[in-house]
Amino acid sequence: MEVNYKDIRVIGFDADDTLWVNETYFRDAEQEYAKLLSQYETPNKIDQELFKKEIGNLGLYGYGVKAFMLSMVESALEISNYNVTSKTIDAILNIGKDMLNKPVELLEGVEEVLQGLSNNYRLILATKGDLLDQERKLEKSGLTKYFHHIEVLSDKKEANYSKLLKHLDIKPSEFLMIGNSLKSDVLPLVNIGAHAIHVPFHTTWAHEQVSESDTKGVSYKTLTSLKEVLQLLK
Amino acid sequence: MEVNYKDIRVIGFDADDTLWVNETYFRDAEQEYAKLLSQYETPNKIDQELFKKEIGNLGLYGYGVKAFMLSMVESALEISNYNVTSKTIDAILNIGKDMLNKPVELLEGVEEVLQGLSNNYRLILATKGDLLDQERKLEKSGLTKYFHHIEVLSDKKEANYSKLLKHLDIKPSEFLMIGNSLKSDVLPLVNIGAHAIHVPFHTTWAHEQVSESDTKGVSYKTLTSLKEVLQLLK
Repeated sequence: MEVNYKDIRVIGFDADDTLWVNETYFRDAEQEYAKLLSQYETPNKIDQELFKKEIGNLGLYGYGVKAFMLSMVESALEISNYNVTSKTIDAILNIGKDMLNKPVELLEGVEEVLQGLSNNYRLILATKGDLLDQERKLEKSGLTKYFHHIEVLSDKKEANYSKLLKHLDIKPSEFLMIGNSLKSDVLPLVNIGAHAIHVPFHTTWAHEQVSESDTKGVSYKTLTSLKEVLQLLK
Repeated sequence: MEVNYKDIRVIGFDADDTLWVNETYFRDAEQEYAKLLSQYETPNKIDQELFKKEIGNLGLYGYGVKAFMLSMVESALEISNYNVTSKTIDAILNIGKDMLNKPVELLEGVEEVLQGLSNNYRLILATKGDLLDQERKLEKSGLTKYFHHIEVLSDKKEANYSKLLKHLDIKPSEFLMIGNSLKSDVLPLVNIGAHAIHVPFHTTWAHEQVSESDTKGVSYKTLTSLKEVLQLLK
């Protein structure tokens, strides 16, 4: 099916792993974390326990680095049977602080694409995670000037996007979302009648994985590089 | 000086300690925290150290319960000279989780005021803190229907409000902010030419305190109860 992009007025960009590297830092952090707790469990078991803890806390903490830090601390207590030392807890907090202080590493072609689109479309950043952390990353990225505004969503489900479109005062057919997560940036959009383009990143958090049956019959475009967006919307 | 409210189109409400109880829960949490660490220091010293830690982490973590939890954990490590037990760390995490799970206790007259104003003004919620936590509190409060949208700001300084007004596409003279914090809800607004009404809450976090010289010559209205807003804008 050929998609008609001519109605589009606003383009939403996901941030983490669409504009800049993010998931890689979480994978690195998890490795460091597993090393700190290696006397108690195998890396695989530590990974599994931390992931379970993150999902268990998701409703209460939401997404982002601070939530991840709190889950790391809590999981360390349990993995160690409450034997973990204060020094290890301190090291865990420092893993998180380092993540928050990381420089922003732009993905290939990002600036070119934003520059190319910003004259003809209203661009917004639509991300989940910590508000402050996302604002800080946008600031560090030097991309602020291309975006009309930054919308940090507590989740990226259909209801969140419907509310966003209502707030932007546009019809679903006038909105295109571009992002690396099928679950968060593509499927909910298609389900509410908006457009979506999938630009995969090499690493995807387990929580963002979708099964093949979820995408069956769903109409969206997949690009291997963000730069192809310019061709598509020309 | 008589303030002219006739231009006002949008009214921003602060949430914590303006619409519902919040600071009280932080004070309770601090007391519980001091009890957990009582073998290491006096409650007063523990309070001071925690406050210093919170301010030190503010740039990195921002506002809200998750930031508070991380600062409690970090401060406990230091106060105890890294002797604090895993069980105490666990108890500290539970203080924070309990805060996030607290029911929302509306302040007097809130619903009446929002109902009274919602027909003639566009109402927005303008708060800082955790996005998810604030959304959840609004949901629990039953007040969602009165608000056009919820704006969670990473900070409440002049620049944040200027951006908000630009986003709302209104002039400063058309905006009125109502809140309990002189520092966050009143002074920055007056400084950018918008209106502000101060409705004090009995407890104010030390970080939100302002000195008398900060408010000298600044024009804003103070009300003892939110209900008086209805009289004022009639």
